[in-house]
Amino acid sequence: MTKKKITMEEMKNSLIAMCERAKIAAHQLSLLNSHVKNESIEGMAEALERDSQEIIEANQKDLKSGAKKGLSAAMLDRLEVTEKRIRAMADGLRLVASLEDPVGRNLSTTNRPNGLVINKISVPIGVICIIYESRPNVTADSAGLCVKAGNAVILRGGSESIHTNTAIAHILNRAGIRSGLPEGCIQLVPWIDRKAVDMLLKMDSYIDLVIPRGGESLIRTVVVQSTIPVIKHYKGVCHTFIDEKCNLDMAAKIVINAKCQRPGVCNAMETLLIHQNIAPRFAGMIGKMLIGKGVELRSDPAFQKYVPSAKLASEEDWSAEYLDLVLSVKIVPDLQSAIEHINSYGSKHSDAIVTDIRENADRFLKEVDSSTVYVNASTRFTDGGEFGMGAEIGISTDKLHARGPMGLQELTIYKYVVYGSGQCRE
Amino acid sequence: MTKKKITMEEMKNSLIAMCERAKIAAHQLSLLNSHVKNESIEGMAEALERDSQEIIEANQKDLKSGAKKGLSAAMLDRLEVTEKRIRAMADGLRLVASLEDPVGRNLSTTNRPNGLVINKISVPIGVICIIYESRPNVTADSAGLCVKAGNAVILRGGSESIHTNTAIAHILNRAGIRSGLPEGCIQLVPWIDRKAVDMLLKMDSYIDLVIPRGGESLIRTVVVQSTIPVIKHYKGVCHTFIDEKCNLDMAAKIVINAKCQRPGVCNAMETLLIHQNIAPRFAGMIGKMLIGKGVELRSDPAFQKYVPSAKLASEEDWSAEYLDLVLSVKIVPDLQSAIEHINSYGSKHSDAIVTDIRENADRFLKEVDSSTVYVNASTRFTDGGEFGMGAEIGISTDKLHARGPMGLQELTIYKYVVYGSGQCRE
Repeated sequence: MTKKKITMEEMKNSLIAMCERAKIAAHQLSLLNSHVKNESIEGMAEALERDSQEIIEANQKDLKSGAKKGLSAAMLDRLEVTEKRIRAMADGLRLVASLEDPVGRNLSTTNRPNGLVINKISVPIGVICIIYESRPNVTADSAGLCVKAGNAVILRGGSESIHTNTAIAHILNRAGIRSGLPEGCIQLVPWIDRKAVDMLLKMDSYIDLVIPRGGESLIRTVVVQSTIPVIKHYKGVCHTFIDEKCNLDMAAKIVINAKCQRPGVCNAMETLLIHQNIAPRFAGMIGKMLIGKGVELRSDPAFQKYVPSAKLASEEDWSAEYLDLVLSVKIVPDLQSAIEHINSYGSKHSDAIVTDIRENADRFLKEVDSSTVYVNASTRFTDGGEFGMGAEIGISTDKLHARGPMGLQELTIYKYVVYGSGQCRE
Repeated sequence: MTKKKITMEEMKNSLIAMCERAKIAAHQLSLLNSHVKNESIEGMAEALERDSQEIIEANQKDLKSGAKKGLSAAMLDRLEVTEKRIRAMADGLRLVASLEDPVGRNLSTTNRPNGLVINKISVPIGVICIIYESRPNVTADSAGLCVKAGNAVILRGGSESIHTNTAIAHILNRAGIRSGLPEGCIQLVPWIDRKAVDMLLKMDSYIDLVIPRGGESLIRTVVVQSTIPVIKHYKGVCHTFIDEKCNLDMAAKIVINAKCQRPGVCNAMETLLIHQNIAPRFAGMIGKMLIGKGVELRSDPAFQKYVPSAKLASEEDWSAEYLDLVLSVKIVPDLQSAIEHINSYGSKHSDAIVTDIRENADRFLKEVDSSTVYVNASTRFTDGGEFGMGAEIGISTDKLHARGPMGLQELTIYKYVVYGSGQCRE
């Protein structure tokens, strides 16, 4: 957005100033009561709708320069902001305002023999940096969730949506401050230079958490550069395993839903595993149905016997995240092989078994090492909204702090508050 | 330990092989019931005591080469393993065996309108890498805690204790495997080359968590190098604030305890803040007591008026972790200044207020952004054992996953286990 050239030194100093403002704002935010936070978030929702023209005009600039740069139609669609999409952002904020405040919960109390009372109390994390690509709704969603959980947020969107994000952040800020939020609690990095990100990722004395959202290469870069803790998922290679005994109609419905309902998202299925004992009754049927839905099949030779038009899968196919109407399919000899396949090729995101055998379900749920494991349901449910969290800031396939959909609670941590009456250590 | 030179390539391949074994072991460990884990840990305790001579002989080698290298007396003391210290390690393991299994707890259940039942179940983290210096008891403590929580552990001790650590790890492994633990669940890196650590810290497809324990420079290096999540504390700059109204005897006892009872540990006090209104009654008295205990005082000019022998503190003193009988002291105008001082110079570890004023206590506890905040107690209580966790794997001043003392629960994460009956996403 900023047109005049600035030196690296100036950029660094400006980023430090942003971080300092964020840190002060985070402290002030942590002291606000739920009422003020909720009013502010509702005020932001209203402002987005009222000032929608400001956003749409900014968006036009991004769309034009995106078209000039040759962005694909899909990319341009993701970038586009319409009145309807602005209403959706506003409704998202209203939902966040209506959720329970995650801060100040007493998570546990320990009474020690020496009389100390130790309370574990949920508190905000502090300053959170969100690094994301294309979809401008992330600007509003992240701001709402972070503020509600008492965190200051530093937003760094993609260069292709810089005008749109700037307009949205500006409106949110103006409305937030009017309703009592501290200045600096929502800040957008104004430079599209990648070096700004590299600098931010070293500012571990100001920023407590980085959440990158976007393609795998963006996320890998963030992880390598960052000295700040990162929560992320690289990709979603989700599996459905059709066990030897199950309701075939249910299995087919789940498979079609997991693959076709929205193939471009991380909780869509990418690999179908079929037990060899049910393959004679299921493989041909599901192959036909999937092809009918326009799905390209890439399979092992065993499945090709039932569906000759399936292409032969390469080794890369088993760990591919297609995000498209493409599916890898494999026939496995037993449950054990299915579990092993998922644990070696999967991405620890979401995996399902369709079965009538209770022991097999239990074993699958226990042994598949993924953030979310399902029996007899579509993997597409891995989502903050679908989990009843109201909204989500992202999905984690890490094994630290949070796994699966991350909502408001996952944007908090705790502190120990200890009440004594003069206790000293012996 | 390994004498013959190996190439970097060979070292890397051997580390990958270790990681692969650890990953398989972690899966097998995650399926063991509490009984097998507890029996194994008790077996390890017994083996340490039975084979103590093996450890002591190995330790002699380390002590000899440590003396030759010119390690300080304090370092050599920390390195030394005696029969008594071996018994303490064994007792630590027995305590861990007696604690509740942190795996398999149902943390919450959500019943969704569509009939999905979502259980949040505690599970092991997976493969944990502990990087530590000198004290060989960390080898036994970490192994016991990790195994109990169902995690495989890769241990990387300091070069100065390589023989001792190797002997301990060997004994633990032999005993563990005999009682049913999988091979590879406790592994010690056999090379003292720093490059082995650099390589390990990039193996993010095998290792789920790194916990560095040691000096600040070790920990900073780990954070910069690692692409694996790290939990850590850099240092402990703990404060005690004496408020304007409080029991002066209690205040003095707490100050003396927090500074003098064991000055070389991270939860010892490093800075004393005194409210100006109580200074006339408290500053001179506490100065005398501290000097009587051999404490060197470094203070602001205001405190020097009461204790003229105090040295003038430099700016660095306010963020120094002395780990010694040295204390920085400052007189502050009010509670607000005390909170601001702690939040800017502290390390988010442990900080205390001594006060009779309830509102001041509440404000301090809320506004001081540290892992553990105390009213009317010594900061020395920040410890897994003192918190009733039984044992600790370390203390976190991060704001992700865990804060403060980390015990067995903090060595687990959760997964979502979802039960359906054919649900598909609309």
